[in-house]
Amino acid sequence: MRILALWLCLASQTALAATENATWIVRTTMWGNNSYATLTLSDADGRLSGSLDGDKVDGEKAGDTVRFTVTDRSGNRSIFTAKATGDTMIGSTDAPDTNDRAARAIHGFSARRVPNRPNGPPRIVDFQPQDYSNSFDPHRTPVLTIWPGDTVRTTTVDSGGVDAAGKTRALYGNPQTGPFFVAGAQPGDTLVIRINRLKLSRDYADSLDMIVRRAQGTSLAPRATALGQPVRWTIDRNKGVTSPDTQGGRLRDIALPVRPMLGGLAVAPGYDAPPISAGDTGSFGGNMDFNEVVEGNSVLLPVQQPGALLYLGDAHALQGDGEMAQYGLETSMAVEFTVDLIKGKAINTPRVESPTQIMVLGQAGSLDEALRSATTGMVDWLAQDYGLTPSESAQLLGSVVKLEIANLAGRSVGVAAKLDKQILARIKPSKP
Amino acid sequence: MRILALWLCLASQTALAATENATWIVRTTMWGNNSYATLTLSDADGRLSGSLDGDKVDGEKAGDTVRFTVTDRSGNRSIFTAKATGDTMIGSTDAPDTNDRAARAIHGFSARRVPNRPNGPPRIVDFQPQDYSNSFDPHRTPVLTIWPGDTVRTTTVDSGGVDAAGKTRALYGNPQTGPFFVAGAQPGDTLVIRINRLKLSRDYADSLDMIVRRAQGTSLAPRATALGQPVRWTIDRNKGVTSPDTQGGRLRDIALPVRPMLGGLAVAPGYDAPPISAGDTGSFGGNMDFNEVVEGNSVLLPVQQPGALLYLGDAHALQGDGEMAQYGLETSMAVEFTVDLIKGKAINTPRVESPTQIMVLGQAGSLDEALRSATTGMVDWLAQDYGLTPSESAQLLGSVVKLEIANLAGRSVGVAAKLDKQILARIKPSKP
Amino acid sequence: MRILALWLCLASQTALAATENATWIVRTTMWGNNSYATLTLSDADGRLSGSLDGDKVDGEKAGDTVRFTVTDRSGNRSIFTAKATGDTMIGSTDAPDTNDRAARAIHGFSARRVPNRPNGPPRIVDFQPQDYSNSFDPHRTPVLTIWPGDTVRTTTVDSGGVDAAGKTRALYGNPQTGPFFVAGAQPGDTLVIRINRLKLSRDYADSLDMIVRRAQGTSLAPRATALGQPVRWTIDRNKGVTSPDTQGGRLRDIALPVRPMLGGLAVAPGYDAPPISAGDTGSFGGNMDFNEVVEGNSVLLPVQQPGALLYLGDAHALQGDGEMAQYGLETSMAVEFTVDLIKGKAINTPRVESPTQIMVLGQAGSLDEALRSATTGMVDWLAQDYGLTPSESAQLLGSVVKLEIANLAGRSVGVAAKLDKQILARIKPSKP
Amino acid sequence: MRILALWLCLASQTALAATENATWIVRTTMWGNNSYATLTLSDADGRLSGSLDGDKVDGEKAGDTVRFTVTDRSGNRSIFTAKATGDTMIGSTDAPDTNDRAARAIHGFSARRVPNRPNGPPRIVDFQPQDYSNSFDPHRTPVLTIWPGDTVRTTTVDSGGVDAAGKTRALYGNPQTGPFFVAGAQPGDTLVIRINRLKLSRDYADSLDMIVRRAQGTSLAPRATALGQPVRWTIDRNKGVTSPDTQGGRLRDIALPVRPMLGGLAVAPGYDAPPISAGDTGSFGGNMDFNEVVEGNSVLLPVQQPGALLYLGDAHALQGDGEMAQYGLETSMAVEFTVDLIKGKAINTPRVESPTQIMVLGQAGSLDEALRSATTGMVDWLAQDYGLTPSESAQLLGSVVKLEIANLAGRSVGVAAKLDKQILARIKPSKP
Repeated sequence: MRILALWLCLASQTALAATENATWIVRTTMWGNNSYATLTLSDADGRLSGSLDGDKVDGEKAGDTVRFTVTDRSGNRSIFTAKATGDTMIGSTDAPDTNDRAARAIHGFSARRVPNRPNGPPRIVDFQPQDYSNSFDPHRTPVLTIWPGDTVRTTTVDSGGVDAAGKTRALYGNPQTGPFFVAGAQPGDTLVIRINRLKLSRDYADSLDMIVRRAQGTSLAPRATALGQPVRWTIDRNKGVTSPDTQGGRLRDIALPVRPMLGGLAVAPGYDAPPISAGDTGSFGGNMDFNEVVEGNSVLLPVQQPGALLYLGDAHALQGDGEMAQYGLETSMAVEFTVDLIKGKAINTPRVESPTQIMVLGQAGSLDEALRSATTGMVDWLAQDYGLTPSESAQLLGSVVKLEIANLAGRSVGVAAKLDKQILARIKPSKP
Repeated sequence: MRILALWLCLASQTALAATENATWIVRTTMWGNNSYATLTLSDADGRLSGSLDGDKVDGEKAGDTVRFTVTDRSGNRSIFTAKATGDTMIGSTDAPDTNDRAARAIHGFSARRVPNRPNGPPRIVDFQPQDYSNSFDPHRTPVLTIWPGDTVRTTTVDSGGVDAAGKTRALYGNPQTGPFFVAGAQPGDTLVIRINRLKLSRDYADSLDMIVRRAQGTSLAPRATALGQPVRWTIDRNKGVTSPDTQGGRLRDIALPVRPMLGGLAVAPGYDAPPISAGDTGSFGGNMDFNEVVEGNSVLLPVQQPGALLYLGDAHALQGDGEMAQYGLETSMAVEFTVDLIKGKAINTPRVESPTQIMVLGQAGSLDEALRSATTGMVDWLAQDYGLTPSESAQLLGSVVKLEIANLAGRSVGVAAKLDKQILARIKPSKP
Repeated sequence: MRILALWLCLASQTALAATENATWIVRTTMWGNNSYATLTLSDADGRLSGSLDGDKVDGEKAGDTVRFTVTDRSGNRSIFTAKATGDTMIGSTDAPDTNDRAARAIHGFSARRVPNRPNGPPRIVDFQPQDYSNSFDPHRTPVLTIWPGDTVRTTTVDSGGVDAAGKTRALYGNPQTGPFFVAGAQPGDTLVIRINRLKLSRDYADSLDMIVRRAQGTSLAPRATALGQPVRWTIDRNKGVTSPDTQGGRLRDIALPVRPMLGGLAVAPGYDAPPISAGDTGSFGGNMDFNEVVEGNSVLLPVQQPGALLYLGDAHALQGDGEMAQYGLETSMAVEFTVDLIKGKAINTPRVESPTQIMVLGQAGSLDEALRSATTGMVDWLAQDYGLTPSESAQLLGSVVKLEIANLAGRSVGVAAKLDKQILARIKPSKP
Repeated sequence: MRILALWLCLASQTALAATENATWIVRTTMWGNNSYATLTLSDADGRLSGSLDGDKVDGEKAGDTVRFTVTDRSGNRSIFTAKATGDTMIGSTDAPDTNDRAARAIHGFSARRVPNRPNGPPRIVDFQPQDYSNSFDPHRTPVLTIWPGDTVRTTTVDSGGVDAAGKTRALYGNPQTGPFFVAGAQPGDTLVIRINRLKLSRDYADSLDMIVRRAQGTSLAPRATALGQPVRWTIDRNKGVTSPDTQGGRLRDIALPVRPMLGGLAVAPGYDAPPISAGDTGSFGGNMDFNEVVEGNSVLLPVQQPGALLYLGDAHALQGDGEMAQYGLETSMAVEFTVDLIKGKAINTPRVESPTQIMVLGQAGSLDEALRSATTGMVDWLAQDYGLTPSESAQLLGSVVKLEIANLAGRSVGVAAKLDKQILARIKPSKP
């Protein structure tokens, strides 16, 4: 109940007498599992019409009682009946059974109205997180509603939950800031997150002296049994360099230029999935630990839930390819990002754009499988945006693709395929 | 017989009355399998002494009859008896059995004397190949004997055997120039090949519009069934760019800067191995297809046979990471290289040095296994040359390693781990 | 609140004036993340003593106010203060910070008392599930408390949530019966689930005509694009055979003997993990889809949460190795199982025992990695229970191990290593 | 020269005045690389006609001078001119260039006539090897010519080259008996080798106490550093059991039933390949180390050279799945096999038939890739011989396939997919 209340209280607080062209997020609860859909509803003197995730909606409203029918592409009908109060609805749906489409089943649902876009140009919003999520959770109440074009200035704690002041603010395990509800985002869209600013907010980072097990050959493993100890790195923010605490060892003169990055960036995973650990990855992004998620670059993720539900965290001051030490240089960060939405364009796997390159990230249980995903994703991109045939893509990849191992530290690994924009600029795009 | 004669005729043609401190390459033939060892022999008035691959040698010479005993570390003795004529010996060896060390077996052997190093500074030798090898063959008669420090200017035909004039000179399948016998090289040493010059020698290259099967996801495979067709690329050697023959397609304005590289560079594989296809790879190098084997860089390979037996070929005008199209831009090349030898230092897997980076190439049947080899090889390098502990290596790899997929086109794949020399320069080397 | 209430209401309903040697499950909530521990508490006239997951506990009780200190192995102290009402406690803990052990942090906690074991011999309990879980959830309220030696008779719905009567009772996605709380089980123990009975409860099963993508070569993929269609299998329960609905095709005379199995069997995953999808696997078991989880066999799983929290579901009438069609022959089942507990013995990966074999299941993101896990697990088992050295294990594995691919249908794959008990019977066990 | 002479002397020694319908094996030498083709030639009073690997042949013979033209499917012509002496020809061919089909190139060739099939029923031939091959070599002179239906009784030495009497007869490294030239076999055919008898010929076997590196997890590797020592197994041939020399350890009462198998069975690899090490594998079979290559089973291999060139060796008294100890129980063997030929039917990967199962062996650089090959090969088999659609295959594989890891000890690994013949017997074959 309390969770439902929290979720519903996100709704815009303006009571409207006659709702016109309102957008609602509908949560259906099937045997304890919540799923989400986007309802657009026009109210013409009590006659309701609109769509639910693209399916036609017809109905009526009388007083606070709402009743509407949703007809899907196959002609199946679901009947929703609810009590509407201000910006919330609570009711039930009588729908075709999940297995036997001829049978019927009744499930509860609730809905909350998405606030209208504020007037004026895109906003810059400062958001100071009060708590953090240790999972990429489609069910977590959004912390903020934003619109395409909006910019958010916020902060992240490090992977241990420690903030800029060195105080523990969340449980270790990549606690995430968010989720941000991006109004208008629906499954089938692509969310673009442009990272405007990624600024170190303290003078140290924590790491390990580890080599991840999957990178250890059997001849290395016996020498690596004592590894995995904490290593503190001091950051000189003026000079932009960092050095490990080496107690006089051979690395004592090392000073490495920092390159702040976000290890974690995700939309909420789709379908009826349970929350996914903030240490895990998927087509939704997640703990990608890809060292090209840096200031000035944009990340494209496939929206899988209404509102996208954007999470971010696990920032690193610096990280080699693959995060081979299991940890990057874990630290807190001030982040500014702008969101945008590509409506009706689906991508299969995360993409990154820098000023000079386009990059596709394949993520899977082995490098060989991740490579296949990255390659396929790049061929898809070249077909979608540049109109290249498979033969033309093959010629380009064979001559100039760059292939980097992006992530080795999670359950899935990552491989990135990259192409220079300078080369792509000479391709005549397919859409005139 | 003819093959033996060819092999022996490599011997220096100077007949010496009394050989002093001569070096011989001994070929033992065990049930039809040839293996090689290095014999150093001093002759003091008929008393012979020296070593055979490090084992002590004692014997005597009377007229043209040579007889000497080799005692290995375990005290096992092998007795060699031969007729010596000028710079060759032919005879037999009575040695411990390969399985039962207490039993004896007799095998034939022959030996040829390695010529003395010419007086004066290292040489620059022009070598015009007359034929080519389609395998990395430990048994092939060397085309030239060179010494550490020497420079060779030679040419390679393309992977189809076509030379600079467009004439087929060898069978397709990466025909190699060589092998070059590097005097003094023995198993346990490291051969350094510095690539001084890699110059395109014609105005076109041949490639395919392929995506290698191991990079195709199951969703890409159905779109890729018609791929694998030949693509000719025109090279503008003045401008240093190349373009595919596109028949007006979307790539028609593409002009890519060339970056000439050697796909094949190998020492002969070790032990009693049969020749290995010039399309294959191993710890000996081979058809590595690594796009960092370019002008200005040095390749380090572990010597596995006396004289190393250096092969090179399969040059590409340009190639993306992994040679994803199965072919690079295959063309002929003029090559100048200098060899050097690091005596008594063994490496496990190929290494490459550029002016700015050190790189280790792991090669194996899967990317996951190749990564393990590359990582282990880099930790080994950092221990050998920089004195780093596993913990220190882990800190460096975790923060700044670069991981590239180097090769996807062969039976084995390659992964390269790279570190910037600028960072390594601040490590105090372990050897004072 | 409601969730907390539910969880607490599991506590035994007997109000006890003076609790002696009571066992409590403590749930600590750290920034919204719940974790669990087992508290044993003796109350001697208000003086409390005991242990929390092995750490020493001292304290006092005055009226309904409880206060106790937990001292860990390093001497760190946590102070718990709570209001105790009957079989529940609610309070807070003042403990070392998760990052900086010198700092302190305050978190809420609650506890519920585990009921005492009923007198008499082990019980046979009939349990009819009311709802199902679509995740392996450490936070879900147990449906039943059982003790080692107890037997449960219950039912499972099919992977689509359909019961024996053909009625949808839960959401598709392997809905699970459970969790069962096994009193006394703690992390570090091994839970043994003996499957006494696995009885088909209806006359059909549902499957697909799929070949999982990871089993498709690139030459198969273009022929497989139309696969993935539903296939209904008719079960003849008298004859114990099943046939696909073939519409007269070449399989029309096929009648395959059923071999009922449980695709899903799991304890709750450990640490502060979020619920894990009922389609996923891990060291906790899960959707293993291993066709040796059959009647007469026992499954051993490493306990990761207090009470183990046993889940089961996703039964198949029949399934080939690896569940290559993505679905087995999915159907409903009547299940009888007996639980047992091996205290203080930890295993790393699921094990299965049949009357004739011992089997270790390795699960990972690739078959190569799963093999390594299975092999290592088998060497561990042979060391733990049979006292074999690595050399002795190697001799046995080399000569008689069987290696089967167990699972291909999930995010992780499974490989099983098997040894015949007949051979092991001739090994003198290490424990006399 | 000597090698050519040896090769040619294989020709049948009957001088024929007028050859009619003779079959010749033609060896073309292109820049030092030999390739082979089958020439059938009819001589009608000096007018020659026939085919070369299916291409049309026309020509004439005058005295001992032969001249004929081969016209391929594209109309390209090659002109062969030779001196024919008895059963040999030596000459040259003027053929289209390998790269530029419009240009011409001249290469040498020789041919030897295949003897006619002896009259009468298939023969049983005893063959006592005089020497052994340490590679699967397409260029090695056959030891015997046999015809489909013939049976050979021969022997193999162990992988160390030791024979039944304990005497070393060949170099270690899986020395092979053979090759046997199977008259009539051509690329595109399938060779069937039925293993009638596999009889242990001595009272011991040699193995190692190894766990192959690819099966070692990183937690096992540090315990496995001392492994790899020789283990001798005593064989009791009367009882059919074997025991390791255990020096009183825990395995002292172990007595394992032997199950003799051939680790190595191969046809010569195709194309212009160099010899391939007898420790390696491929589509041609090779060192498959698959423990179903036992007495009573048949192995099907894709012919890749004229005459197939069958090799066999590396017998094991017993071996677990995957040859996890790197060695099986290596011993000598008496072998009886019968060959058969399926003309015009190509398979992609080795197949094995037992009295109860059909099995496909996938071999590749990783288990994941080998699985894809095995699955694809099984779908191919079900389509070829049983007429199953991909959908029908998927239903069968999903419900009853068995998947075993066959080989872990080589550069490539093996996975076997198996189906019971009892089930397949109920499929109506596609060819009536």
